[in-house]
Amino acid sequence: MPTNGAAGRQIGVSLPRLEARAKVTGRAEYTHVMQLPGMVHGKIFRSTVAHGRIQRIDVSAAARIPGVLGVFTGEDIRRVIPDPYYGPAFHDQPILALDKVRFVGEPVAAVVAIDPHIAEAAVAQIVAEYEELPAVYDEVEAMTSKAYVHDKLRPAGSFADLKHLKDVKSTNMAVDARLRRGDVDAAFASAAHVFEHTFHTQKCLHLAFEPFAAIAETRPDHVTVHTSCQGPSFVRFELARLLGLPQNKVRIRIPYVGGGYGSKLYIKLEALVVALSLLVRKPVKIALSMEEQFYQITKHPSTFRIKSGVDKDGRITARKCEVYWNGGAYADVGPRVTHKSGFVASGPYDIDNVWTDSYALYTNLTPAGALRGFGIPQLCWAYESHTDIIARALKLDPVEFRRKNLLHEGKAHASGTVLKDAPLEAVLDRLCERLQWSAPFDRGNGSIRRGRGLALALKAAISPTTSVAMINMSADGSVTLYCSTVDMGQGSDTGLAQVAAEALDVPADSVRVVPRDTDVTPYDMGTLGSRSLFHMGNAIRTAAAEVKAKLAALAREVGEPEGSNIPVAELFQKRYGMQAGNVIGSGAYKPDYQAAKHEIGYSENITPYWMIGGAAVEVEVDTETGHVRIVRVVNVIDCGTPINPRIVETQISGASIMQLGFTMFEKMHLDGGQVTNASLADYKIPGIADVPPAMINETVRNYQQNGPFGAKGAAESATLSLSPAIANAIDDAIGVRLMELPLTPEAVLRALRAKEGAPLDEATN
Amino acid sequence: MPTNGAAGRQIGVSLPRLEARAKVTGRAEYTHVMQLPGMVHGKIFRSTVAHGRIQRIDVSAAARIPGVLGVFTGEDIRRVIPDPYYGPAFHDQPILALDKVRFVGEPVAAVVAIDPHIAEAAVAQIVAEYEELPAVYDEVEAMTSKAYVHDKLRPAGSFADLKHLKDVKSTNMAVDARLRRGDVDAAFASAAHVFEHTFHTQKCLHLAFEPFAAIAETRPDHVTVHTSCQGPSFVRFELARLLGLPQNKVRIRIPYVGGGYGSKLYIKLEALVVALSLLVRKPVKIALSMEEQFYQITKHPSTFRIKSGVDKDGRITARKCEVYWNGGAYADVGPRVTHKSGFVASGPYDIDNVWTDSYALYTNLTPAGALRGFGIPQLCWAYESHTDIIARALKLDPVEFRRKNLLHEGKAHASGTVLKDAPLEAVLDRLCERLQWSAPFDRGNGSIRRGRGLALALKAAISPTTSVAMINMSADGSVTLYCSTVDMGQGSDTGLAQVAAEALDVPADSVRVVPRDTDVTPYDMGTLGSRSLFHMGNAIRTAAAEVKAKLAALAREVGEPEGSNIPVAELFQKRYGMQAGNVIGSGAYKPDYQAAKHEIGYSENITPYWMIGGAAVEVEVDTETGHVRIVRVVNVIDCGTPINPRIVETQISGASIMQLGFTMFEKMHLDGGQVTNASLADYKIPGIADVPPAMINETVRNYQQNGPFGAKGAAESATLSLSPAIANAIDDAIGVRLMELPLTPEAVLRALRAKEGAPLDEATN
Repeated sequence: MPTNGAAGRQIGVSLPRLEARAKVTGRAEYTHVMQLPGMVHGKIFRSTVAHGRIQRIDVSAAARIPGVLGVFTGEDIRRVIPDPYYGPAFHDQPILALDKVRFVGEPVAAVVAIDPHIAEAAVAQIVAEYEELPAVYDEVEAMTSKAYVHDKLRPAGSFADLKHLKDVKSTNMAVDARLRRGDVDAAFASAAHVFEHTFHTQKCLHLAFEPFAAIAETRPDHVTVHTSCQGPSFVRFELARLLGLPQNKVRIRIPYVGGGYGSKLYIKLEALVVALSLLVRKPVKIALSMEEQFYQITKHPSTFRIKSGVDKDGRITARKCEVYWNGGAYADVGPRVTHKSGFVASGPYDIDNVWTDSYALYTNLTPAGALRGFGIPQLCWAYESHTDIIARALKLDPVEFRRKNLLHEGKAHASGTVLKDAPLEAVLDRLCERLQWSAPFDRGNGSIRRGRGLALALKAAISPTTSVAMINMSADGSVTLYCSTVDMGQGSDTGLAQVAAEALDVPADSVRVVPRDTDVTPYDMGTLGSRSLFHMGNAIRTAAAEVKAKLAALAREVGEPEGSNIPVAELFQKRYGMQAGNVIGSGAYKPDYQAAKHEIGYSENITPYWMIGGAAVEVEVDTETGHVRIVRVVNVIDCGTPINPRIVETQISGASIMQLGFTMFEKMHLDGGQVTNASLADYKIPGIADVPPAMINETVRNYQQNGPFGAKGAAESATLSLSPAIANAIDDAIGVRLMELPLTPEAVLRALRAKEGAPLDEATN
Repeated sequence: MPTNGAAGRQIGVSLPRLEARAKVTGRAEYTHVMQLPGMVHGKIFRSTVAHGRIQRIDVSAAARIPGVLGVFTGEDIRRVIPDPYYGPAFHDQPILALDKVRFVGEPVAAVVAIDPHIAEAAVAQIVAEYEELPAVYDEVEAMTSKAYVHDKLRPAGSFADLKHLKDVKSTNMAVDARLRRGDVDAAFASAAHVFEHTFHTQKCLHLAFEPFAAIAETRPDHVTVHTSCQGPSFVRFELARLLGLPQNKVRIRIPYVGGGYGSKLYIKLEALVVALSLLVRKPVKIALSMEEQFYQITKHPSTFRIKSGVDKDGRITARKCEVYWNGGAYADVGPRVTHKSGFVASGPYDIDNVWTDSYALYTNLTPAGALRGFGIPQLCWAYESHTDIIARALKLDPVEFRRKNLLHEGKAHASGTVLKDAPLEAVLDRLCERLQWSAPFDRGNGSIRRGRGLALALKAAISPTTSVAMINMSADGSVTLYCSTVDMGQGSDTGLAQVAAEALDVPADSVRVVPRDTDVTPYDMGTLGSRSLFHMGNAIRTAAAEVKAKLAALAREVGEPEGSNIPVAELFQKRYGMQAGNVIGSGAYKPDYQAAKHEIGYSENITPYWMIGGAAVEVEVDTETGHVRIVRVVNVIDCGTPINPRIVETQISGASIMQLGFTMFEKMHLDGGQVTNASLADYKIPGIADVPPAMINETVRNYQQNGPFGAKGAAESATLSLSPAIANAIDDAIGVRLMELPLTPEAVLRALRAKEGAPLDEATN
């Protein structure tokens, strides 16, 4: 083919990030600090009650403040967006509260002013009165509570097709996702041992360092939104729906994003700024404070009742999973988390009889969505703690027990999908090797006790989803890559540029990746679920193939012999008589997929690839204080071929440290629906001192057959297993089992005291 | 094919302009009023001498003014752009003057300050001293003058290949474009009559209502320029060359443009703002005042010596053309104007023996470039005045004389290219019909005399040039069109959307045309020479064909029968399981072309289509004041199929009114190289009172075989012939012949007095 010069291998190389210079010199553009000429500022007035009927909103004092352009309520929004309900799974969330409020912090009114401080001062002058209604906060109570968060369900998209959701009233259950394989009851009856436990995870949140921010510039027939967002295509689609515009009249622009982790998917502030901009006819920006993030989107708290039957040889014969997902007041993507993760709730094991119910539940709390792992960290917390408890009870080595039950390559998972390119055993082997599982181990003494634990998980990709890529080669041979994958710090621009470069045989650092802009960058389902490298990478390969075919056609047009490797710049010169022209290729990728049937969950192909992540840890527990010191963490994942090994390594360490926070201390404290620690002064996230002194981050050798150059995603895999690995290590050290996250010193101490028969209160009194 | 619903015919329909609402509501974005956060402002210090060696530039007082970030000279520019010479034909123009200045108004230094007023105040504090050098202003004198504007020629691009320009020194002649057909000397010797005249045109300028403006945002490895410009792709290419960057690291963004007319082609302020931005490391904007436009780019003054031999039957047998183009101090696109227009200097006539020399000459004046007609209005001024003088001398009806000599469809033009789809006679017929040429005519009496005149021209397109278009169809079937054609008021967005809509069978007003942005919109040679509708229109058709082929492939993938007309939105839904995906098609168009040989000019194919424009006028001349009143103007052009008849009509009237200014009063007055009327107070352009009371703007029925849906451009055709039509009418009215533009009352009066043997001075004394 026509060539840009033999560039050599562009993948498997730790190219520095393309955006590194712009970021370290402070010249990278972020929505949160963006200024537009003539831009005005919005601030949100929020509900102080968890559930209530709006009786009165008095905005008169706020509206009188000089510099205030307007104060708007839900009814005002309806003047520009008549049906203002949105959501990726259910159309249940109003842009501003209508009639009712459903969680503390819900947006009730918005002030637009020439300055954000004026807007904030005006918000403080708004008075709202509510008739308080009974509220529900716990996901298990929500199943039976008569405090209904919504009067009726509003399923949308594929959920709208689910018959059992039609016209359902008087329920807090948005979705009940079921998987049935074999006969669990019969298997439990004949099992040698049956174990049943209930695990909990807490409410915590993403806390991106760039809080949510969006700016809308609107005309009656065209809308542009600049936003810190992970999914431009969906936001375009959803805004077009809300506004009744075709997609080509809605433009979503995304500069660099300062972290997302699943929080910045779907509509967040975008619909509100658009509505406000239409109302005041100026560009409107809303940028949340760090504190306001506690009222936007969170991670699902969960309750997982898991029951396993084990035969006399230590083989798991049956598993029953009941997972309750606390979705908060609005569904966001919770039903899909519930649905998709439900299919793999039984873990990476080969179990003939599986029964799963996964319930998406409404409560009167901040809505919950996807957070780096799409539910699997919550599930793995339960099933891998449960696995260790069983092994311990049966006096089996936890590794041996796992090996005995592990799903093998080529066998069907409970969902019906066969395990392929999924090296579970290799990951387990590597964990053991790096932690020296078989070597003698110093278990400590006195008040300092030492222990080890590990855990293993698999995750199906969110499927089926589509990515489209476009590549433009200029007349000098330089390459521009267009894709709507959002680089929010994970390094996707660099990795995808490497895929494009490898496919086109050009140097990767010469590939320019244009900023996300739906006017320009084609459709992508979203940057989520570690899907981008695989899906967008495959789309890029198709686009590159089209570019190559068109270059070859150009070469034929100018009479080059078949197989000519005429330099590209020379080819354009020859064809167009000057340095003119472009060659443009595009490619779409959607994996083959067979939907898991709602009732029974059997399918041959629910995921195009499996993600595997394992963690092993070594801890020191201070039995006098309950303090757990993580001495060593080993993270091993499978991402097929690492396209950029250095970026993969930072993805693994980043994921692990993030999950460490969720495991050890992060928790939103709630009091009657009110978050009592909604600030970074009170809500601790991992700091540099929390990073374990020894951290090993590795990938196993693998090649994903259907991936781009053998690759698949790496972003979430190191979040999946860390929490149970630590709990297992604590149990190994001090013989107590924690059933709930986070694993605080207080929880450890309480458990120790409980084991010793002395509750904490007595012990410390 | 898959369908968006039968949209009906989308061409030949006067769709309102897509941008109409944005423009009339003041929401359309223009560079001149654009603000960027952190942006600072540049102002230019200009030469006060026409030709001189720079002795000293003292910027110290300017640099001390608070708010000034820097004062920079040509040498400073070299710190960031080592070889700062640019130009589309010759690389002869420095970003800021180096060593020498070559015209009054040439940029010598630039101030960057936090505010444009501070920058302007600082400019006033700069002191420069020059050693004055002999200067040359007249194009004919420049041929032989020893005052050389440049020490050596710096031809670039295709001009660099011309051997006779290599290492030429001591000349002001940049290009001598020659055409030779037959033997003119022999033909003159045997002619029944030989006529020779010399015509002049004046220096005037484009005067777009949005003066030149550009803003640069730079990083060391990436440059963005927002600019009011007609040719984003060329500016990208040229800036990449100056900066030593690949094209994909240079981004040119063009919002709406407030008029161009050829002035905003190629580098104007763009290189300067980029250099200043690199120097001060901030976004830098320069927006010229209306007055500064007089020092940027102008229309070529010209001298045309035309000599024709006519046989006894009134057939023109030979024509010799010597055209002197006054290009000013830097070549800009002048050599190409000289070259391309030179080939058609002999007019729309069938002449066996033609000899043309067309000279591009440097002088110490503001540079000259293309202005709506690419030199043809200057040529037509001469050859159609000359035609009438001959007819009058031979006592022939001017129309009959033209008919006798007109080039017929299928015959080769002097350049060698055959006339095709070029209805010269139909245009002439229509002019006569609308002016009622054969009807009795009131010739006035007393001091008010009435006359009629007409003229006819043909123009070759600037060829070969390339356009690339891209079309993106979203999952809801909405269409986005990407092309680098710049809508600067001519309505190209609407016309090209109609072509795309017709090709895709969707409603044209649903097609979104994205703003010009080289990151996004593919290569286009430039919006010039009425080339866009034809070239970009053809590229769009190819892109649309690719979209249709890809839609058909999608339909096959989902099992639709061949020829299925499944709605597009349904097709995407079926293929991707949701409203996902895009279909992207691109297309390049470059017409077949055979270069005219430099020496003899014969070629079979120098233009992909011919443009035809004719004008007929009726005037009243006041013989006491010399005032000429244009009573009626008929403009008839051929643009093949009018895609949007209403826009074509406004293009015709706009071109005609613009040319009316150049014909009747516009002139840059010069005194020793100094423009003495450089303001709109002193330089008159047509106002509403100057528009003739009766104006007929029409197209003839035609179909351009190789055009998109039979269309070709319309922007320039009505500029070509108006000037000689008016001069011919004046002669018809009062029997005096004006040889020089503009046709001011003073010129008319002088000519009348001269005819009467009394010069004006005596008559008025």
